[in-house]
Amino acid sequence: MQANPSIGQYLIERLQAQGIRDVFGIPGDFVLGFYQMLEQSPMRVIGTCNELNAGYAADAYARLNGMGAVCVTYNVGGLSLVNAVAGAYAEKSALVVITGSPGMAERRGNPLLHHRVGAFSTQRDIFEKVTVAAVVLDDPETAFREIDRCLELARLHQRPVYIEIPRDMVDVVPPHPYRSLTLTRESEPEALREALAEARELLAKARRPVILAGLEVHRCRLGDTVMAFAERHRIPLCSTILSKSVIDERHPLYLGVYEGAMSREAVQRYVEDSDCLILLGVFMTDMELGIYTAALNPENWIFASLEDLRIRHHHFHQVQFVDFVQGLAAAELPVRSLPEPLPSHPPRAAWAPIAAAPVTNRRLFEKLDGILDERMVVVCDVGDALFASVDLGTQGATQFIGPAYYTSMGFAVPAALAVQVHDQNLRPLVIVGDGAFQMTGHELSSIARLGFNTIVLVLNNKGYTTERYLAEGRFNDIHPWQYHRLPEVFGSGLGLEVHTEDELEEALARAVAHTGAFTLVNIHLDRMDISPALERLTRGIRESL
Amino acid sequence: MQANPSIGQYLIERLQAQGIRDVFGIPGDFVLGFYQMLEQSPMRVIGTCNELNAGYAADAYARLNGMGAVCVTYNVGGLSLVNAVAGAYAEKSALVVITGSPGMAERRGNPLLHHRVGAFSTQRDIFEKVTVAAVVLDDPETAFREIDRCLELARLHQRPVYIEIPRDMVDVVPPHPYRSLTLTRESEPEALREALAEARELLAKARRPVILAGLEVHRCRLGDTVMAFAERHRIPLCSTILSKSVIDERHPLYLGVYEGAMSREAVQRYVEDSDCLILLGVFMTDMELGIYTAALNPENWIFASLEDLRIRHHHFHQVQFVDFVQGLAAAELPVRSLPEPLPSHPPRAAWAPIAAAPVTNRRLFEKLDGILDERMVVVCDVGDALFASVDLGTQGATQFIGPAYYTSMGFAVPAALAVQVHDQNLRPLVIVGDGAFQMTGHELSSIARLGFNTIVLVLNNKGYTTERYLAEGRFNDIHPWQYHRLPEVFGSGLGLEVHTEDELEEALARAVAHTGAFTLVNIHLDRMDISPALERLTRGIRESL
Repeated sequence: MQANPSIGQYLIERLQAQGIRDVFGIPGDFVLGFYQMLEQSPMRVIGTCNELNAGYAADAYARLNGMGAVCVTYNVGGLSLVNAVAGAYAEKSALVVITGSPGMAERRGNPLLHHRVGAFSTQRDIFEKVTVAAVVLDDPETAFREIDRCLELARLHQRPVYIEIPRDMVDVVPPHPYRSLTLTRESEPEALREALAEARELLAKARRPVILAGLEVHRCRLGDTVMAFAERHRIPLCSTILSKSVIDERHPLYLGVYEGAMSREAVQRYVEDSDCLILLGVFMTDMELGIYTAALNPENWIFASLEDLRIRHHHFHQVQFVDFVQGLAAAELPVRSLPEPLPSHPPRAAWAPIAAAPVTNRRLFEKLDGILDERMVVVCDVGDALFASVDLGTQGATQFIGPAYYTSMGFAVPAALAVQVHDQNLRPLVIVGDGAFQMTGHELSSIARLGFNTIVLVLNNKGYTTERYLAEGRFNDIHPWQYHRLPEVFGSGLGLEVHTEDELEEALARAVAHTGAFTLVNIHLDRMDISPALERLTRGIRESL
Repeated sequence: MQANPSIGQYLIERLQAQGIRDVFGIPGDFVLGFYQMLEQSPMRVIGTCNELNAGYAADAYARLNGMGAVCVTYNVGGLSLVNAVAGAYAEKSALVVITGSPGMAERRGNPLLHHRVGAFSTQRDIFEKVTVAAVVLDDPETAFREIDRCLELARLHQRPVYIEIPRDMVDVVPPHPYRSLTLTRESEPEALREALAEARELLAKARRPVILAGLEVHRCRLGDTVMAFAERHRIPLCSTILSKSVIDERHPLYLGVYEGAMSREAVQRYVEDSDCLILLGVFMTDMELGIYTAALNPENWIFASLEDLRIRHHHFHQVQFVDFVQGLAAAELPVRSLPEPLPSHPPRAAWAPIAAAPVTNRRLFEKLDGILDERMVVVCDVGDALFASVDLGTQGATQFIGPAYYTSMGFAVPAALAVQVHDQNLRPLVIVGDGAFQMTGHELSSIARLGFNTIVLVLNNKGYTTERYLAEGRFNDIHPWQYHRLPEVFGSGLGLEVHTEDELEEALARAVAHTGAFTLVNIHLDRMDISPALERLTRGIRESL
């Protein structure tokens, strides 16, 4: 760090200190000075086709990396990525939104500068609704402190923040020295002690405890701690649809994904019959709970999260999530044997293609289960791409990425870009419906530019099939693309078209072997074909009516 | 209108009463009931690839049609089109945003429903910043009145409004009868009389008056009134970059587009030397004023707009824009002869290709000037596509569409879709840079689906060329697409690639003759090649420093 950094330089240094090495975005005149500064720094700038895609990519990068950043111009840039930032807020991802804006000097006289809408503060006012902090660095005296405060809040809450730099502030060097700020939140020792004692007591009595390891276990990097705790006391674990892959799914204590009626039946029964449910960092959404088909009894709850600690029917206000989980993991409990055989994950069936048989969702995902390896990251888009993927057996802590709660269509292809920007040794397997692909699939352009070997499976069921089960109408039909011809547009990549099981087997083998560039497989499915998981959900909703 | 319409039915009726026949958008579960109602109505639903594109299209439709509508689902849909709505706000377009949301009944207990971010009101709170009214139809007693209020405000202000229907309110029939509301704003008669008298006096004395006919002349449908006024008193007219084509550019009184230093020199001199400047509905932005290179003397102003009426240095608060313009047009003034020869529009040069010569911006636009006809609508995207197009000679009141103030890249292709949805007999000529095309060019998919004969010219200068003149960096480079191969992906259309002038002539002839589907021409330009208009601007800015 040089002696007297400017506001722009300080921001770049602090982003680096948080482990951010890549920034996604698109330049524009109000942010060009900062872009030049970024280009001259060790930071890598990753251009995308449009800002929404940059937002999705930066969100996915943050999920993998701990924190991510997107940098765009004023209003036309920023207001294009509101939805991606909202998704990061909803699903707890530490995304830093950086934006340029008109210089403070050129705002005098309140002129109608291009890109302006309403007040000069409109963009900040909007981002205030989908971030935990939104600041304009318009004062050199406070700029450094504000940068630190934003980044610390993003880390603490695992949610987005917004930092706006008027273009004439980028090069300003603050007049006074400054020492970096670190926010910490501490538990009240007595409350922590009481909570842990009570949890230990419940656990000691429990005959059949189960851990539900949720999203925040991943965001707070507590996966290993939770796993060690489970192993020491032989407590089985589930993940949720939002946290899938937080636990290595090959582990003998792993039961599966719990998601109410959408769960495999044995998993649902095991969890709902438990006499001590340890909910760690679970986000109690309709998606996590199988559209509220879940029957979880609060009588037996130990519920700990970033926002709340609840045991049975009372709450502890001053206990930090991380402290509680670590305390629990360190607790000495009577050693117990497992009370009964666990519902085992169904063994992978040997898969042989039925020649000329049309591909179905069920058969497709059975086949995919067999091609996953440790370097692959399953990146799902919304709809049956997401529901069906829950049945795939993934491994490791970041092997499954999907917008499983906010469910914003179009997330997957930009997210896949981020996977290999984060770590080029990973290999994304993108599972995306045709409707979602039409929204953001052009971002394959950046995947082509960077030479990544992403595999994209387009589930081509000719429209919004999940919606056809809710309300049929011509509005669910979309224009049929020749998706596999896109490599010709982007000048690289392999495009394949699949109708039958034998074609599927051959195409997937070619895709896996094709490591020089991306592969896109256009998989034709019947317009009404859905996965077993989505069938379970529809049945569960019907039964709960 | 049936006796007792539901809230959803009433909304559809009132949209139709405003002349809206088509709604753009994408369905989602929280808006599916209303989508089914739309499909059963005479309204046509136009699906797009994603919501931002739907927003751009509906904005363009509103500019052509007087009012337009976009209908999307909660948050993931709505928050994706904030930028398009902001553009409609900034450039005064009466765009109605309709969105579904969770039912009022299912909000009880404050559950974390999918698509939710923060409070249930987050989406409305955000749209409040970029609309003139934002309502949630959560009360049957007030729903009809709120619908009417929104639509009337959109019409009066020519700006967007936001209407959210919780999904369990769509079918609710309000308990009490209701009579439709029409808002009117009236001028104070004395103020109007005084303002008109003063304007007449100024005009009677003026030796060289000029009318600047701005955006609001188009939005308020006052083009014919202004033209008749100009003809009767032989007052020359200019348009602005935002209002280009509000006046038939072949008219003998038409001087050209005034845009400060970006204007043709003779136009700039004529306007800036005028002794009575009649500014009608001009939006005083940096873009209208050639990035503030304009030298207009307020000493001689008659400035009338939707927001203000100013003569010289004083303001009239209670005079409506339409009343003033109509009063002015009806005024009896001494008949005057034109004081001097007008700066004539340069004659169209006969254009013959120079064989094998690389295409340049200057030569391209000279050529384009010769192929425009009365059915063509020039739809411009941002950058040199916009600056250069200002020199094209267009005709009629809606022959030029571009985001000339808000300058949001990616506007043009979705806007072109709207042109032919509005009137299939029009033929859009889209002029779009490669950077902007990569943002939203996939919306050609809908143009292909509907069989429109749009012509798309991609100015392929390998990146963000306008920005290269502001700050060079690798971030201005983009991935080279084979744009002309896109017809293979969309299954229809003609794709052509052009490097030289003879190829350009042949490609444009083929494009004009190809009326069965869209044509995309990939025009290679040097990465540093810019138009004469952009050269004038850079020179003007340099001189004013």
